[in-house]
Amino acid sequence: MVNKIFTIIAGIGVPLTIIASLMHWSSIAMFLIGAITVIALSSFMGRATESLAVVSGPRIGGLLNATFGNAVELIISIFALKAGLIGVVLASLTGSVIGNLLLVAGLSFFLGGLKFKRQKFSFHDAQHNAGLLIFAVIVAFVIPEIFSMSMNETETLQLSVGISIVMIALYLAGLFFKLVTHRGVYQHSEGEEYSEHEEPEWSKKKSILILLIATLAVAYVSENLVHTFESVGEQFGWSQLFIGVIIVAIVGNAAEHASAILMAMKNKMDVAVEIAIGSTLQIAMFVAPLLVLISLLMPESMPLVFTIPELVAMATAVMLTVSISNDGESNWFEGLTMLAAYVIMGIGFFLL
Amino acid sequence: MVNKIFTIIAGIGVPLTIIASLMHWSSIAMFLIGAITVIALSSFMGRATESLAVVSGPRIGGLLNATFGNAVELIISIFALKAGLIGVVLASLTGSVIGNLLLVAGLSFFLGGLKFKRQKFSFHDAQHNAGLLIFAVIVAFVIPEIFSMSMNETETLQLSVGISIVMIALYLAGLFFKLVTHRGVYQHSEGEEYSEHEEPEWSKKKSILILLIATLAVAYVSENLVHTFESVGEQFGWSQLFIGVIIVAIVGNAAEHASAILMAMKNKMDVAVEIAIGSTLQIAMFVAPLLVLISLLMPESMPLVFTIPELVAMATAVMLTVSISNDGESNWFEGLTMLAAYVIMGIGFFLL
Amino acid sequence: MVNKIFTIIAGIGVPLTIIASLMHWSSIAMFLIGAITVIALSSFMGRATESLAVVSGPRIGGLLNATFGNAVELIISIFALKAGLIGVVLASLTGSVIGNLLLVAGLSFFLGGLKFKRQKFSFHDAQHNAGLLIFAVIVAFVIPEIFSMSMNETETLQLSVGISIVMIALYLAGLFFKLVTHRGVYQHSEGEEYSEHEEPEWSKKKSILILLIATLAVAYVSENLVHTFESVGEQFGWSQLFIGVIIVAIVGNAAEHASAILMAMKNKMDVAVEIAIGSTLQIAMFVAPLLVLISLLMPESMPLVFTIPELVAMATAVMLTVSISNDGESNWFEGLTMLAAYVIMGIGFFLL
Repeated sequence: MVNKIFTIIAGIGVPLTIIASLMHWSSIAMFLIGAITVIALSSFMGRATESLAVVSGPRIGGLLNATFGNAVELIISIFALKAGLIGVVLASLTGSVIGNLLLVAGLSFFLGGLKFKRQKFSFHDAQHNAGLLIFAVIVAFVIPEIFSMSMNETETLQLSVGISIVMIALYLAGLFFKLVTHRGVYQHSEGEEYSEHEEPEWSKKKSILILLIATLAVAYVSENLVHTFESVGEQFGWSQLFIGVIIVAIVGNAAEHASAILMAMKNKMDVAVEIAIGSTLQIAMFVAPLLVLISLLMPESMPLVFTIPELVAMATAVMLTVSISNDGESNWFEGLTMLAAYVIMGIGFFLL
Repeated sequence: MVNKIFTIIAGIGVPLTIIASLMHWSSIAMFLIGAITVIALSSFMGRATESLAVVSGPRIGGLLNATFGNAVELIISIFALKAGLIGVVLASLTGSVIGNLLLVAGLSFFLGGLKFKRQKFSFHDAQHNAGLLIFAVIVAFVIPEIFSMSMNETETLQLSVGISIVMIALYLAGLFFKLVTHRGVYQHSEGEEYSEHEEPEWSKKKSILILLIATLAVAYVSENLVHTFESVGEQFGWSQLFIGVIIVAIVGNAAEHASAILMAMKNKMDVAVEIAIGSTLQIAMFVAPLLVLISLLMPESMPLVFTIPELVAMATAVMLTVSISNDGESNWFEGLTMLAAYVIMGIGFFLL
Repeated sequence: MVNKIFTIIAGIGVPLTIIASLMHWSSIAMFLIGAITVIALSSFMGRATESLAVVSGPRIGGLLNATFGNAVELIISIFALKAGLIGVVLASLTGSVIGNLLLVAGLSFFLGGLKFKRQKFSFHDAQHNAGLLIFAVIVAFVIPEIFSMSMNETETLQLSVGISIVMIALYLAGLFFKLVTHRGVYQHSEGEEYSEHEEPEWSKKKSILILLIATLAVAYVSENLVHTFESVGEQFGWSQLFIGVIIVAIVGNAAEHASAILMAMKNKMDVAVEIAIGSTLQIAMFVAPLLVLISLLMPESMPLVFTIPELVAMATAVMLTVSISNDGESNWFEGLTMLAAYVIMGIGFFLL
């Protein structure tokens, strides 16, 4: 049912975006059409990814999920960079971090926890992720923020580029660690078996084809979407910051939302956590530094310097998530706590 | 013996407060009489609560302890709000948080640890509390502080009210979680049995009656006490901040101090930790936001914005407590570390 | 082989320092000679300490390692204080903290992890150390920083002295805890046995003699080394901060580096972690406050107030280390993450 609706929306949304763009419809119309279409397309990407995940096991599956969820994010951000909207890009990175940690993981814990009293996930993955979250957000994002206060623009950019290179290198080393040198070292045997008994929705070939087409369509729609932000913000009384942190992040991460929650409700918490936290790590350690490097080719470069409220939101979200998830267990109240933190930050960014 | 002394003090203290107030004795005399009387009354509340706790089991017992300990706090704060002493209220909330975490839990760990080599308490409760402490102090107190820096007064108050509502809702959800949906889920069987072999000091009826009378008496004495702060501060060279953070907090939390330490020395660490940390959570997630909402009815509203030193003291106290308590074990040195942190903060607030 | 080279370097370096000082060689020559000589002498101290450690078991061994590694640090710092270089002393304390946590422990985890898939160390020691790291850096260093912002110079110094006394007292209590009241309480039996099967390189007497002579030589060379900092900084374009945080810290901690890594590669992670984190704790809780007290006798007193970048570097290093080490396990990727954090901070301090 839901799938059919999304198929129809995507089928109508993409041509409608083309028409709206040609006929110069109002920004609000274009914003709504664009946002809903991206979400529908993301759901295709989510389903295709889930099919691939069933074939590939939970870890590679989680990785695939995170990659293609963040493809949308990356595409939107590149178009925003091209349009000179550096503030929006940094805000949407912030939004992805707090959205994935507090909203996606929070909803997964909450909704999964309503069905199951105690849900378990890999303690070792939680520890591994905690270390990287603290590395990425608490070290690699906080350092340029604080140090740049007594630096000029060139030094700030040099620091940003240096940090970006270190982060990407560490991110790749982390994949090597997970997939090569320590593959399965920390795995408890039960986790692996879940997927065996399930049939993928689509074949491997079909999944990949759908992923590719949906990604291209997302790219096209995103470019149009980005250009509506300014006037929509004015009309709704939303700041650029609020649009970036809350709206773009929710639209851009809809795929993760859907598939993580789906997995949580099937009690596959390993995959749900991998999507939510793995996706955050990919945003922070790969997408963000990559955008810094890409911005060097653009007219205006983007230093890795968030605003103080953005940084505080991300850092506190990381501390809360680490503290809640590091026992390898979840329940509905832990999810609700994370959602409450998200609502508090949302109110803050709205009023700012 | 001690109990008899407290009975005498309370019996003399309450009428003495009335006389002192009618005859306009010096502030210092009234401050001393008030403070000692409140502590003596608190000890009654503590004993009544302990009797109820013996009947009700360790978890409900801890909850009762925290509630009636914080009744004193709440009463003093409402009178201080009425007197327009917003700075003192925020300072005394700060003092309750760091006092309960570092002084009450610290003394419990230290004195309990002198008697027992290693004391254990519920690992799951510690995890649960850690998440909430980080939510309340690191997220819900830090966000308004940082965001309000670029907000006007109205926005700051709106943010404070929004956050307060979220916190109270989450606090109530937490009670529902603990007492209904997950009652006993994380309980190890041993903990429950302690109380069975003990006789309550007073019957249930008598305990409740004493609680009520003592609460009323505390309210009367507190109102007089609050009005002495300003001139006492001047005469001793204490700042309003120091009075609020250290003096009011110690007087207002004397009940928790006494009963938590008592429990620790009986090796009932589950109850001791529940009192100290549960009380902190109640202050941060219930009393503080409730005072924000109550202050809307007062001539001057109180935003949830602490001073930077207050916030840093609370946040670092939370980090230290979480790191020390999250293994579900304590010893005298861990207690001493917490006490050392309290002394450092005390020196800081004294010199400020 | 390596040992012979170091013997030769030390044998040539000490007289060369004397000659260079008498003949007024260039600063850069004296800096290089001094730095290399101190490292060579430190290696002697390391070997002597390792011999003693083999005799004394892993805990006392680690303590000895940390003490004599930090003797070099303390000696250099006292000469720098005498020369009025307060900024350099604070920077080198910062550098020791982040160097020991991120570089020494990072290299130990990384190089040990290349040889062994998973390395374990005492979970209880990790917990104990985590609490103290957070106490020392997050509480005792952050509080004076924040509070001093609204204090005058006298109050700041009073606060620094008060905190220093509390820290040293707690440090001594910690030794009492570890070596007397709770000696072996948390020890798993395996850890102890490692050392039994090993022959010390030198006898106890010879080790102590070498330690003494090397310490005296280090003192002499350090005094000369300190005076070269200013002009070397100018010629290389290094700030005082960079010299203190990175150069002095690496030179001053070479002994810990060598012996911790050596132990890690022999899979004695208990000793390696004890050296790296124990040494940090000794710097933060003993050397730093001791220097504050010693500075009272000097013409210019040193308050315990770091610069904001220094403090943020230390605090984030602590959070990362605690999060990575608190499961009592390590692997090469965790080491690499710590090294990446060190590189990021190094770039930051270089550009500052």
